[in-house]
Amino acid sequence: MNSLSVIKIGGNVVDNPQALEAFLDDFVSLPKEKILVHGGGVMASQTLRRMGIEPKMVDGRRITDAETLKVAVAVYAGWLNKTIVAKLQARGCNAVGLSGADGGVIESVIRPKEPVDFGFVGDVRSVDVKFLEMLLDQGITPVLCAVTHDRKGTLLNTNADTIASSVAKAMASVRKVNLTFCFEKNGVLADPADEDSVISQIDRAGFEEMKATGAISAGMIPKLDNAFSAISAGVHKVIIKNSANLGNSIGTVIG
Amino acid sequence: MNSLSVIKIGGNVVDNPQALEAFLDDFVSLPKEKILVHGGGVMASQTLRRMGIEPKMVDGRRITDAETLKVAVAVYAGWLNKTIVAKLQARGCNAVGLSGADGGVIESVIRPKEPVDFGFVGDVRSVDVKFLEMLLDQGITPVLCAVTHDRKGTLLNTNADTIASSVAKAMASVRKVNLTFCFEKNGVLADPADEDSVISQIDRAGFEEMKATGAISAGMIPKLDNAFSAISAGVHKVIIKNSANLGNSIGTVIG
Repeated sequence: MNSLSVIKIGGNVVDNPQALEAFLDDFVSLPKEKILVHGGGVMASQTLRRMGIEPKMVDGRRITDAETLKVAVAVYAGWLNKTIVAKLQARGCNAVGLSGADGGVIESVIRPKEPVDFGFVGDVRSVDVKFLEMLLDQGITPVLCAVTHDRKGTLLNTNADTIASSVAKAMASVRKVNLTFCFEKNGVLADPADEDSVISQIDRAGFEEMKATGAISAGMIPKLDNAFSAISAGVHKVIIKNSANLGNSIGTVIG
Repeated sequence: MNSLSVIKIGGNVVDNPQALEAFLDDFVSLPKEKILVHGGGVMASQTLRRMGIEPKMVDGRRITDAETLKVAVAVYAGWLNKTIVAKLQARGCNAVGLSGADGGVIESVIRPKEPVDFGFVGDVRSVDVKFLEMLLDQGITPVLCAVTHDRKGTLLNTNADTIASSVAKAMASVRKVNLTFCFEKNGVLADPADEDSVISQIDRAGFEEMKATGAISAGMIPKLDNAFSAISAGVHKVIIKNSANLGNSIGTVIG
């Protein structure tokens, strides 16, 4: 099986032109087939405010009414996605930007209205492995944004981490998948205040022990739960690292 | 050679939800391979105004500064393109939305700064026929928006009519291409005030005669010049019609 890198970047890269250029330099140097998944919430919130709409969040998740959906799709699938694609093309990487509607690649279902009505927010139902494989076979690098569709004509705002892990799990049936989550820290840290205290590898037994002893910060637990769920679903490796370190080995390997 | 329909729609369809639904019903019923090209200037102008930016036009063409480019790409490649793609998917048509940067499909050059500096506006330089053919061979319907790139990382606002005719001309080397321009009138009219006076066919000799006798409105001349230029470049037929008539034969056939 060929190797495939699925790499997720968030707002700290996408909304920062200098960090984005440096990241893309490293990204195109990756030798294997790759898929990029990006968020970009900061610019969406700025655009909403500029249009006189106050962004609404509950538990760190965006409430997406009809107006917010327009702005989110415009910013994620339009400006940010095409900016990344054009920059990859300039580096000789043949990228194609996709929402979940394009090629019907990611279908989602609107989230139940209880306990919180998040509006036009979708939870991933399925990923079209054949479509992504077809693009990869053509030497194309898919660039996925945080927008999906319900196959009934409605676009839905969808968490980029979930898109990345759903794509990684689905592609594990046809590729040896390494899934990398880039975030603002160097990895899982033994001391949250010390960026040099990166734990280089965590296996399931180690994770359970760290949870039991409180040696891991509460905020990291859902990220690691997701990582182990990807491993259980057949993903080869999950890596948590700073986007600035894509070109080196600093980071935490899960699995 | 297989037949291919290249169909261009403008703001009067894209910015009108009811007209768009009716058009897409007819579009998916077309039996052959097809490519959709869309504009959408009305929503871009509305969004600019809502953000406190007054749209600037010279000779009916948008002056695209850096802020306007962001909004144009967001609206064209984001909200409008993905809305159309999701609605096609809901109709069982496997659409993929593309800017010119995606797959490097349309490269353009920034327009010279003299006599008018239009800003981030590009004139089409080349169309990647192989990429479009690959998608069509997979049963995919490309949906192109009015955004291209210069292959150096810059996105450029590009006239949708020009994109449609450039794509039609390029694809004429591998397909029997019918190029349809949808606009707000029923076709080329013998009497501009009478929508029932559609001239069903115009050949080059007839066009020259009409120009000489003034039997054709000044506004139609550039459209017809473009149409004959497409025919000269190998396009099989050019049709000018109302988007509401895509499912019937009302319209003007050029060639």
